[in-house]
Amino acid sequence: MPTPKDSGHESAAGAQIKPATGKLGVMLVGMGAVATTLIAGVEAVRRGKAAPIGSLTQLGTIRLGKRTDNQTPLIKDFVPLADLQDVVFTGWEIFPENMYEAAKHAKVLDKELLEEMKEYLESIQPMPAVFDQHYVKRLNGTHVKKGRSKCDLAQQLRNDIQEFQSKVDRVVVLWTGSTEIFLEPTAVHQSLEAFEKGLLEDDPGIAPSQIYAYAALKEGVPFANGAPNLTVDLPCMQELAKITGAPICGKDFKTGQTFMKTVLAPALKTRMLGLRGWYSTNILGNRDGEVLDDPESFKTKEESKLGVLDFILQPKLHPELYGDIYHKVRINYYPPRGDNKEGWDNIDIFGWLGYPMEIKVDFLCRDSILAAPLALDLVLFLDLAKRTPELSHLGIQEWLSFYFKSPMVAEGLYPEHDLFIQSMKLKNTLRHIMGADLITHLGLEYYD
Amino acid sequence: MPTPKDSGHESAAGAQIKPATGKLGVMLVGMGAVATTLIAGVEAVRRGKAAPIGSLTQLGTIRLGKRTDNQTPLIKDFVPLADLQDVVFTGWEIFPENMYEAAKHAKVLDKELLEEMKEYLESIQPMPAVFDQHYVKRLNGTHVKKGRSKCDLAQQLRNDIQEFQSKVDRVVVLWTGSTEIFLEPTAVHQSLEAFEKGLLEDDPGIAPSQIYAYAALKEGVPFANGAPNLTVDLPCMQELAKITGAPICGKDFKTGQTFMKTVLAPALKTRMLGLRGWYSTNILGNRDGEVLDDPESFKTKEESKLGVLDFILQPKLHPELYGDIYHKVRINYYPPRGDNKEGWDNIDIFGWLGYPMEIKVDFLCRDSILAAPLALDLVLFLDLAKRTPELSHLGIQEWLSFYFKSPMVAEGLYPEHDLFIQSMKLKNTLRHIMGADLITHLGLEYYD
Amino acid sequence: MPTPKDSGHESAAGAQIKPATGKLGVMLVGMGAVATTLIAGVEAVRRGKAAPIGSLTQLGTIRLGKRTDNQTPLIKDFVPLADLQDVVFTGWEIFPENMYEAAKHAKVLDKELLEEMKEYLESIQPMPAVFDQHYVKRLNGTHVKKGRSKCDLAQQLRNDIQEFQSKVDRVVVLWTGSTEIFLEPTAVHQSLEAFEKGLLEDDPGIAPSQIYAYAALKEGVPFANGAPNLTVDLPCMQELAKITGAPICGKDFKTGQTFMKTVLAPALKTRMLGLRGWYSTNILGNRDGEVLDDPESFKTKEESKLGVLDFILQPKLHPELYGDIYHKVRINYYPPRGDNKEGWDNIDIFGWLGYPMEIKVDFLCRDSILAAPLALDLVLFLDLAKRTPELSHLGIQEWLSFYFKSPMVAEGLYPEHDLFIQSMKLKNTLRHIMGADLITHLGLEYYD
Amino acid sequence: MPTPKDSGHESAAGAQIKPATGKLGVMLVGMGAVATTLIAGVEAVRRGKAAPIGSLTQLGTIRLGKRTDNQTPLIKDFVPLADLQDVVFTGWEIFPENMYEAAKHAKVLDKELLEEMKEYLESIQPMPAVFDQHYVKRLNGTHVKKGRSKCDLAQQLRNDIQEFQSKVDRVVVLWTGSTEIFLEPTAVHQSLEAFEKGLLEDDPGIAPSQIYAYAALKEGVPFANGAPNLTVDLPCMQELAKITGAPICGKDFKTGQTFMKTVLAPALKTRMLGLRGWYSTNILGNRDGEVLDDPESFKTKEESKLGVLDFILQPKLHPELYGDIYHKVRINYYPPRGDNKEGWDNIDIFGWLGYPMEIKVDFLCRDSILAAPLALDLVLFLDLAKRTPELSHLGIQEWLSFYFKSPMVAEGLYPEHDLFIQSMKLKNTLRHIMGADLITHLGLEYYD
Repeated sequence: MPTPKDSGHESAAGAQIKPATGKLGVMLVGMGAVATTLIAGVEAVRRGKAAPIGSLTQLGTIRLGKRTDNQTPLIKDFVPLADLQDVVFTGWEIFPENMYEAAKHAKVLDKELLEEMKEYLESIQPMPAVFDQHYVKRLNGTHVKKGRSKCDLAQQLRNDIQEFQSKVDRVVVLWTGSTEIFLEPTAVHQSLEAFEKGLLEDDPGIAPSQIYAYAALKEGVPFANGAPNLTVDLPCMQELAKITGAPICGKDFKTGQTFMKTVLAPALKTRMLGLRGWYSTNILGNRDGEVLDDPESFKTKEESKLGVLDFILQPKLHPELYGDIYHKVRINYYPPRGDNKEGWDNIDIFGWLGYPMEIKVDFLCRDSILAAPLALDLVLFLDLAKRTPELSHLGIQEWLSFYFKSPMVAEGLYPEHDLFIQSMKLKNTLRHIMGADLITHLGLEYYD
Repeated sequence: MPTPKDSGHESAAGAQIKPATGKLGVMLVGMGAVATTLIAGVEAVRRGKAAPIGSLTQLGTIRLGKRTDNQTPLIKDFVPLADLQDVVFTGWEIFPENMYEAAKHAKVLDKELLEEMKEYLESIQPMPAVFDQHYVKRLNGTHVKKGRSKCDLAQQLRNDIQEFQSKVDRVVVLWTGSTEIFLEPTAVHQSLEAFEKGLLEDDPGIAPSQIYAYAALKEGVPFANGAPNLTVDLPCMQELAKITGAPICGKDFKTGQTFMKTVLAPALKTRMLGLRGWYSTNILGNRDGEVLDDPESFKTKEESKLGVLDFILQPKLHPELYGDIYHKVRINYYPPRGDNKEGWDNIDIFGWLGYPMEIKVDFLCRDSILAAPLALDLVLFLDLAKRTPELSHLGIQEWLSFYFKSPMVAEGLYPEHDLFIQSMKLKNTLRHIMGADLITHLGLEYYD
Repeated sequence: MPTPKDSGHESAAGAQIKPATGKLGVMLVGMGAVATTLIAGVEAVRRGKAAPIGSLTQLGTIRLGKRTDNQTPLIKDFVPLADLQDVVFTGWEIFPENMYEAAKHAKVLDKELLEEMKEYLESIQPMPAVFDQHYVKRLNGTHVKKGRSKCDLAQQLRNDIQEFQSKVDRVVVLWTGSTEIFLEPTAVHQSLEAFEKGLLEDDPGIAPSQIYAYAALKEGVPFANGAPNLTVDLPCMQELAKITGAPICGKDFKTGQTFMKTVLAPALKTRMLGLRGWYSTNILGNRDGEVLDDPESFKTKEESKLGVLDFILQPKLHPELYGDIYHKVRINYYPPRGDNKEGWDNIDIFGWLGYPMEIKVDFLCRDSILAAPLALDLVLFLDLAKRTPELSHLGIQEWLSFYFKSPMVAEGLYPEHDLFIQSMKLKNTLRHIMGADLITHLGLEYYD
Repeated sequence: MPTPKDSGHESAAGAQIKPATGKLGVMLVGMGAVATTLIAGVEAVRRGKAAPIGSLTQLGTIRLGKRTDNQTPLIKDFVPLADLQDVVFTGWEIFPENMYEAAKHAKVLDKELLEEMKEYLESIQPMPAVFDQHYVKRLNGTHVKKGRSKCDLAQQLRNDIQEFQSKVDRVVVLWTGSTEIFLEPTAVHQSLEAFEKGLLEDDPGIAPSQIYAYAALKEGVPFANGAPNLTVDLPCMQELAKITGAPICGKDFKTGQTFMKTVLAPALKTRMLGLRGWYSTNILGNRDGEVLDDPESFKTKEESKLGVLDFILQPKLHPELYGDIYHKVRINYYPPRGDNKEGWDNIDIFGWLGYPMEIKVDFLCRDSILAAPLALDLVLFLDLAKRTPELSHLGIQEWLSFYFKSPMVAEGLYPEHDLFIQSMKLKNTLRHIMGADLITHLGLEYYD
């Protein structure tokens, strides 16, 4: 009987993973709402003032063995993750505000909480950022690095990373900045050589976020991107990641509406319910909303958001159900809401004999509150991947698809967008690297 | 490496399954909205007038092997299911109307479609039903069997089944009737012997639906229940099912709001988002709505609906996230809607550091349109189970949990309510009985 | 031409109104969420810390003359109302907490605001209340008056009022307590004589709220009721009000869902759009929600809420549009929300040739935030009525219908529930008592 | 006492209105969804097959005298309106389809109903239209008039009108066509003389809809515009209307979302509730949706939709409540819905002390079903105005503001957008021309 339980353990599988001892340095690119919510939140958790809700690494459990075994440890007790006490934050930002001031401007967290941690938050000051308004029209920063060329800027970032590395044991870099304008890969991105030449020649195809990604990977440091702009989803970067053993993964945190979409679309498909149209509109009033009000930045986001349905629903396999879908995504800057985002979905479905039905979902969410725990998990899991020989050499960490609107996969493979497949992939990867049996949910043995 | 792909195929696994040749007789208990929508729909599909949307057996595909193998046959081409052309319907009903009249009263399907199939629908006349108004207060039927005792009534039903069996090759019985009042198992249900004694003595704990279930199982015929009342989820019935090799499974079709709940609750849990409260209200105006307006019938439904969250969210493992949930379910009879049901969910969640957010879902669905394809799938899969030696002797078919608000599991096991785990269980069961590799979504091999 | 502008002013009409000099004492019956929100809010407004949003007396304007006259004074500059600086609060409550503690328990207002006004709020201590758990099942108070009979209790209340009157210039009594169980008028309510006899004999038809109303009116003090229980809508009370010249008005603050209903129903009627059904559900988690979870208290509320549609839509005049409406109102106690109430309305309408359409309204409101300004307006307007000879002798102040789910009208008259007619009635009454032209919105003169 | 009831009747006021004898010819410009729904609907009503729901002229009543008088005749029994039996339809359209074909394409009405009236609908063939794709980018018609100049085209339309006038007794022209691109008044619109010169010189500021309006008014025929483009809201047209005594009124039928907005905004204002933002999005899939997908046409619509709030809320009078509103309107072409439009409104309000609340309205409406009865009412009321000496000489009929997103008013006057003021204005106008007392809702007399 072909169940996975028959296959033997490789003894001491997890033993090859390096332990998570010492300090883990987290470098955030863009220290606005998401970054301050992450930093203040981690500190609040460390002080026992709040719980890291939404974080799989902190609260998630993993079932091992049979349902009747009652073996469900915390993930952080099962795999060797860095402890929150060992996490140290720094980063870059185009405004010179310290984290206390930045958090107050972001208006995400309660004043009371921020006041309590004022001293800690004030102690974190951003380094000057690499920035070019050409790539983010609606922003205009003052706390910006100057350089002779993009290559020079990359070198400055590498210096920043090296300096931070000297103070901590391991480093991860995470883009928590704004969405850049829509760019498509060009010749400059096709190889590491071409990219490095492009850096020297200030190629316009190289946006700041790519310079950060390049600097991180060059240093062998894992890199993830919370926004939808091109960064490591480029041949040159994948080449570099393999060379330096730097784990990379997808882009654009899957938080509000797309999170919901990758939950509901699989549900419809599981039940073979047809889809005629899906209209999604968002209102939000934070800096992200302002940036996305610029059509060029919106296009970057739109591409990231629109792809989801096709991959989940597989219209080619099911043309009668999903062959003719009208999918529209709108984002509207709406200041009255601040960081509180509202996503409204209207879903036109059809069932038995073609009869139409409708699902409407209104998600009153909070952008940074949803993003912060994803940022934390990615940092900790990327650090785990770096320490796991079986994973670090792969470059792309497909098992982290769970966190992204645009997961990253090997060439020739379609991405998995279904949240539940992503979750299973993540957990079975953890089981696998620790030498535990994979779960298939077959479970006939209970009836014998 | 403990992946399931390493384990060898048992050659010709599927070969032990008996072929689906000949006629499959479907006996429906309660021939109202769901039954007529099923019957008219199957005939419309057979005539090429409409598509069996919502049916996994008719439209679903199953991935075999690796993602890059591009092997995704239709389920009905992968496992030997009865062909729709071979399905023959009959059943019992407390009103004497033929299926054309009953479908017109139900007001689910368009007049035009019904007129086209008038002759066929008129040809199906219900047999008199076993009925007792004590168990369904709001109904009062006229087309009802008389008998000296419940035992006598059971015998009459067995005669009906036997007579139908003489005309077809295989039979399945499915309850598509109204919800009976809330009953709890008593001594009479603890063994087959006690139950058969209870039938003779007209034990009040034995409701009509149990008499149908008993009759079916006694004849070795699979039985499923689309409503939430007690039928085969009783020790006496499980004993009988094992004796006669009759597949049984859960109860209460998972259609509108609960379907949605078992999609969204897993999504929250996957992301470790907390839950404070879930308020669900339904409005519907069909006969089901009228029956559920009776508090005793509603209680039966309520129990079935409320259990879902606890099993999915596991509050004992996650007390800080799910330890204090206020869950309320309301159903309101609202005639303006007829069979068009509306389910409104308000979900109070919390994320990072405890910040509250809200999700509201409004599902404008159609009760019978959602139920009919589930009824079809269950009939075909139960028939498959009956023909599959590895499954038929198990009695309980846990892999059909996918279809029920109240799945049925082996004693000592908790039921899986997560729609996606249920779907995986179903598909891996099909892979298993056909000797194909199970899917784990690990997929590291693509990167080597 | 029969326009109202032709009619002459009665010169100095407003001159007969007594000026609003001196202190206005406000006595609140039930000092929970609404009362504390009112008291703390008035104080915050006095200190310039917040604005009295939602209050017509504080912010409303009134148009005088033609549109082109640009004459739109504030209402409080047009009619002589008591100044907020002159308002003094006291009241009765079944718990002994002072207003600071009560406000904290109510969890309506921000901590920060309450802390600022702690001293003031602590200075207001409730007097012991007249209470009997028979009439409000879910509450159980400790700070309760004892008396030989209901008559004795009434006398104690009158003493309280007299004592307070000795410290201020004028007094108004307002019920801001919980909803009592459903009672229907009996013989005891048919005359003042019968009622006073009933007080002596502890007639069970006399609930505590009636004792308060009686005490107030006996002292010639205006009385209003924010809850739906029977108080002054009784012949005995109207008799008494006329005798003592005490203004009375309707009951049950029109705040969330009913406010919306009396906006949307007139809109449908204005356009002659038909109505098939209206399903209203509410979730709220405050003390009011808990009290209304008791079926007897809910019935009182339900009656008050259901009547609205019939009076607005006039089904007898329009049987084809409104002759067959299915109207259902549900209230559900749902603690996760606290004082934040959510009202969800589903409205099934039909238009041209009978084609169906739907309107869904989701009102995420705050119970006490909506009620507090109505309480303030009623206090100030009732005090105005008491000082206005043309109004005080009328007893019933129909022009205050604007504030109530159950407006009060002269015998033989139907109540006006249309919010816009109520608003017009209120404003034209103010114009009338001040001798200004009434507004008819005819306005042909602009075109001559 | 300055009530309007004191003012004397002008005896036999209504007697000056010419009777509605003979045929009323209705000429529709643009014979698509709205026009066919109107024509088929009127015929269905004449045949007793359906009811004219949504039509004030057909179903509305009007209260006369005191509430206790019980005098509430139908409007059509109170004022002399043309009988539906006397209404005759014709019109112009850029496609040559007859009304049966056009109605089938519009997919608004059920097949069954259309089949029943096939013969009648086929008998109505559109005349070739004046059209220029420059003004409606997304359409491309074939059934189009040719002319040497815009003046020549105007003359051709006048000939069409005259020819139709020879067959009926009175004529009304109504634009039921698509939305033209956004135009602003230029010099050519400042006087009749300039306009007529512009016609000769093919001035680009003169769009086809203006040519229709000009032709109608030149013939002394009333004209109304169901779309938001400039037509009679121009000095030249008002000049002409006064000369020929042709009644004119506002533009852009107030049907779905704006109808709702002019209901809810007055409700907020009546209660002095503040407004922070109002986000309105629409999805619709009919030809109108397609036309409005063109940014130039959308701009025309947007202007018409955005103005509403300012006039109702009067931010200058209430800066603390309405001084800083973020108002956004979006329309999205979404084919899955066809003529079934969905308008979703999110309204961010604030109450007592500034506490925020939210109202969400989802209106699942039908565009043409809502518009058709407004079209009918306008035709009949404009015809009444033409026959009423006191109204016809005014040109602008402000009392018809009730029907329009952009009401038309005398220079120097602000438009009334509040649906309830508009309704009152309309009804008091009818009372006025018939010599009945105006209603003020004062009603103190009931208490004396």
